[in-house]
Amino acid sequence: MIKGGYTQKILRVNLTNRTYIEEPLTQELAKNYMGGAGFGLKYLFNEVPMGTGALEEGNKVIFAVGPLTGTKAPCASRMSVVAKSPLTGGAGVALTGGYFPAELKFAGYDAVIIEGKSAEPVYIYIQKGKVSFRPAEKLWGMKTSDCERTIKDDLRDQNVRVACIGPAGEKLSYMAAIINERHAAGRKGLGAVMGSKNLKAIAVRGVDPVPIADEKAFAKARKRMLQAMKDSPVVYPEFSKHGTPMTVEVTGGLGIFPVDNWSRTGEWVPLEELGIPGNNKKKSGKKYCYICPVGCTQEKLATDGEYAGYLSAPEFETIYSFGGVTGVDNLDSIIAADFICDELGIDTMSAGVVIAFAMELYEKGILTKDDTDGLELKFGNHREMVVMLRKIAFRQGFGDILADGVRVAAAKIGKGSEKYSMHIKGLELPGYDVRGAKAHGLNLATAYTGADHNRGYAFQEIFGIPIPYPVDRFAVEGKGKLTKWNQDMRSATCDCPPMCAFLLDMAVPEIAAENTADLVSAATGLEFTPEEVYQVGERVNNLARVFNIREGQRREDDTLPERLLTEPLKAGNSKGQYISRQELDQMLDEYYQERGWNDEGIPTREKLESLGLPEAIEALEKIGGVKID
Amino acid sequence: MIKGGYTQKILRVNLTNRTYIEEPLTQELAKNYMGGAGFGLKYLFNEVPMGTGALEEGNKVIFAVGPLTGTKAPCASRMSVVAKSPLTGGAGVALTGGYFPAELKFAGYDAVIIEGKSAEPVYIYIQKGKVSFRPAEKLWGMKTSDCERTIKDDLRDQNVRVACIGPAGEKLSYMAAIINERHAAGRKGLGAVMGSKNLKAIAVRGVDPVPIADEKAFAKARKRMLQAMKDSPVVYPEFSKHGTPMTVEVTGGLGIFPVDNWSRTGEWVPLEELGIPGNNKKKSGKKYCYICPVGCTQEKLATDGEYAGYLSAPEFETIYSFGGVTGVDNLDSIIAADFICDELGIDTMSAGVVIAFAMELYEKGILTKDDTDGLELKFGNHREMVVMLRKIAFRQGFGDILADGVRVAAAKIGKGSEKYSMHIKGLELPGYDVRGAKAHGLNLATAYTGADHNRGYAFQEIFGIPIPYPVDRFAVEGKGKLTKWNQDMRSATCDCPPMCAFLLDMAVPEIAAENTADLVSAATGLEFTPEEVYQVGERVNNLARVFNIREGQRREDDTLPERLLTEPLKAGNSKGQYISRQELDQMLDEYYQERGWNDEGIPTREKLESLGLPEAIEALEKIGGVKID
Repeated sequence: MIKGGYTQKILRVNLTNRTYIEEPLTQELAKNYMGGAGFGLKYLFNEVPMGTGALEEGNKVIFAVGPLTGTKAPCASRMSVVAKSPLTGGAGVALTGGYFPAELKFAGYDAVIIEGKSAEPVYIYIQKGKVSFRPAEKLWGMKTSDCERTIKDDLRDQNVRVACIGPAGEKLSYMAAIINERHAAGRKGLGAVMGSKNLKAIAVRGVDPVPIADEKAFAKARKRMLQAMKDSPVVYPEFSKHGTPMTVEVTGGLGIFPVDNWSRTGEWVPLEELGIPGNNKKKSGKKYCYICPVGCTQEKLATDGEYAGYLSAPEFETIYSFGGVTGVDNLDSIIAADFICDELGIDTMSAGVVIAFAMELYEKGILTKDDTDGLELKFGNHREMVVMLRKIAFRQGFGDILADGVRVAAAKIGKGSEKYSMHIKGLELPGYDVRGAKAHGLNLATAYTGADHNRGYAFQEIFGIPIPYPVDRFAVEGKGKLTKWNQDMRSATCDCPPMCAFLLDMAVPEIAAENTADLVSAATGLEFTPEEVYQVGERVNNLARVFNIREGQRREDDTLPERLLTEPLKAGNSKGQYISRQELDQMLDEYYQERGWNDEGIPTREKLESLGLPEAIEALEKIGGVKID
Repeated sequence: MIKGGYTQKILRVNLTNRTYIEEPLTQELAKNYMGGAGFGLKYLFNEVPMGTGALEEGNKVIFAVGPLTGTKAPCASRMSVVAKSPLTGGAGVALTGGYFPAELKFAGYDAVIIEGKSAEPVYIYIQKGKVSFRPAEKLWGMKTSDCERTIKDDLRDQNVRVACIGPAGEKLSYMAAIINERHAAGRKGLGAVMGSKNLKAIAVRGVDPVPIADEKAFAKARKRMLQAMKDSPVVYPEFSKHGTPMTVEVTGGLGIFPVDNWSRTGEWVPLEELGIPGNNKKKSGKKYCYICPVGCTQEKLATDGEYAGYLSAPEFETIYSFGGVTGVDNLDSIIAADFICDELGIDTMSAGVVIAFAMELYEKGILTKDDTDGLELKFGNHREMVVMLRKIAFRQGFGDILADGVRVAAAKIGKGSEKYSMHIKGLELPGYDVRGAKAHGLNLATAYTGADHNRGYAFQEIFGIPIPYPVDRFAVEGKGKLTKWNQDMRSATCDCPPMCAFLLDMAVPEIAAENTADLVSAATGLEFTPEEVYQVGERVNNLARVFNIREGQRREDDTLPERLLTEPLKAGNSKGQYISRQELDQMLDEYYQERGWNDEGIPTREKLESLGLPEAIEALEKIGGVKID
């Protein structure tokens, strides 16, 4: 019996009919999927019919928290937003933090399933077990902070928490994000799914604390986790001070900080400007998610020059996407671009990468000023970058060509541009040139959400942490096994409980499963062993894999952009490295084998049975030409 | 005895020593000055020594509300901010609304006197009878909305209300404003006075309702006022729908909407874009101040083109200052400029006028691109306007020349530019070409704050309202008497109770003094007759006049820009009109006589005695060469 942790209620909201119902959370769902991305993927798989277009009415958006959200477990105010992704056509999961996730839990829900499509722009307001459907015509076109402010005034409650889309989501940009108070569920274009439903925002207000099944055991588990965080040489001494931007130093040192759309990685690392020194010069204040003791968000303020007054907190991935790959070393312009992305509701990573893509085409003469609305779109041109970013969000001029990410842009532009489009399964690459971090490359190639920084992050290669075992980042052997562990462990200990991923990477990798098991067991009263925790992660990855297969993805989609497969790095500490097609195939074979998938990358009946996924077996059986035995 | 209305406490905060005390509100102060601007001017007069520089430590900033603030009296969530003005060198009073004024009252104060200067950037937090001095280094450089958000997070209370300065105030721009939630105490550069004290913001949280001495009488008075508002043919049918931008139509119709720095008034009125039709096309939502039933603030959203996503509520005066006088007819750019002013904390009116001034100099060849940082600063160039606005707020390049308003800019530029600087006593003109509205011209010439839209607004001339009697707007005779009435009545019924000025102009002019007397008497238990109410206004205007005389102003400062005195309007419904020096002198003579001032514009001993202003007499006696007998 579930005794705590969960609110045990799922809210189902239908925008077409403007109805809502509460459904009970079953113990089976809780035990097998835990929460967060697990819940979201399960509902996505079961309820969104095969072949549904991501922007069609039949797609659903699931906002799911988990058993630790809103409790005193550190760093657990996290939420997964799940829908079929317009960018990848597969399972889309985007994570976010802040206060909204905890507020949703306090409002009484483990998940909210949004279905249907409103005839007019609408926002929903959830409080005290009720859902109001409120007109959003006047919010349509608003930046996210204006939307949030206007909703708070409209509801006469400054304490509501708001997750909303900006103009990019309204205009169905495949790169559109969902923003809650400058926190983004940024990737995979899930903001466009909200936009396609005419749903501008979700406002939520909650007051009920989350019950804990076994307070004593919970306190003990929590204490151990806090101690592990304190003991970490990284969490407080480094990460709490510098936040993710410190990864510029790390990747720069490894020679894998991507530069000029991956054409010059290793040749240029502007650490003074984009690394810790540059970031510290601009540091304003720290921001904390609900109950987080770390506060990794470091706001930066531009005080001089043309970007003076811009304040935002560009994470490493944003510094890479508006910095490294665009060749821009002006941190102020990155702060501005980050702010604009938050306000207009667009993913910083995809937006930067698609601009870098256009810059390379411009440098190569494939694009000219006639194409770019007169902008000299060269690497390093930060002004043009910022102007183009706004055009993308509003689909103005050439921005419309870029608004759906590099895959679509390359298809529209043609002229061989596809070879410069740096994506996997349609999702733009994160800030690691995986030619110098091969497990990470395999992970990006196989992650169910495409080139996602939030799936099986190979911290072993990036930070040199020897857990579960030490690895050589250039090696190929053993990377299949490692990648499975990274993906499953990440899903199990970060995406589902949920907990902030940084803690897995930096503080508790050796006790991650135990830590999650103890906290979740104590909170819920359900007994999770560490093995069961890990298996939740494996189950989630298999279910998502089958979802993607159902939607048409195959082994050939588990690949890397051509550049990474053919061009060795020319300089830096990963000089000469690349992942050849043969190496990729070797890693894939090992990975599939470790996963219990066949050599086409299809999960076997045996594996799916062992994970208790009959619906996945059924789905595969329905698809012609797929072998599962 | 004071029985209600007032909290009866004045908070005195010393930034130098980081101390604060509460002082009792005396019945004498209440009865003679009522509240708001009255309180502020009284403290300013008594406590800021003669000759104190506006940006010196000895200047004080007084935030004063009044007996109706926070009560159920409609439209009374108003506040006066008072300090010696860096722009005019005289008494500076700026008004604002929103929620902050009511919140200050709920926190228990009729006024807050800020004195001294903090060694480091600081903000103060007022709640439960306590003042905290909190570090503001990290807020320094922030836009106002970021500052507000950061303070709310810092205090872990989303319900605090924040009034703060932006970068312009920090950089001591003489045009700097104080912003509370997009409401501006905009004029006279009082934001710079806060900046000079290293005071970034005041945060306040209150929970105590305002007691009412006689609930029944208060309800009756309130009902009458609400009825008058309902009966008005303007308040709900027009003003509540269109807000102040409807004044573009009105002034355009009269031929007094200023164009191209007053060089082409009457020749061009882009109503389709800047008037009601244009504004309605962009309308987003209405905003209400605390307890206001009208909601005149009409937010406008730019949805297309280069300004897409900008949301703000440009009032008439902003449409004039970034529209008419700059020759710009692009409403989106005005929305953007208005937003930028709110965020950077700069007065929209002064900023627009100083840009218009520079545009005329550019058109005349007095300035070239060498001066303007390469910007083609021609009338109508909205892009250059927006770029220059940011430069002004941050004092970048040529923006530094313009940052202290037209009077200082003309002095710096020289080359005869002074004749194009449209100011009175250093304050940039509001949006009425007073060549076609002569009482309004006299009012601007004599108002103690300079060319202020918020002193004795001649609604008789602008809206044709025949109260207290009908007037011919081109006539000169009788305008001295009218101006005295307008100035005193406005101070008495708007600045001090306080109440929104629009209600005086549009709803209750015939019962303004009675209305105020009844509401304030019922709220406070002090008996105010209508005559006493009016006399409060007269007292305030006399005290402020003497303050200005003490600081060096004389009859020759009661004047108009040369252009208005010498160039007849060339087209439109005020064609041929101007105010000759002789006409101005005639009006001044009548005005002084009506006021009981001598022909040098110095209040006589008799007048000051009759108003109970011994301190004013004493001050004048100390100044050499001033006759008061």
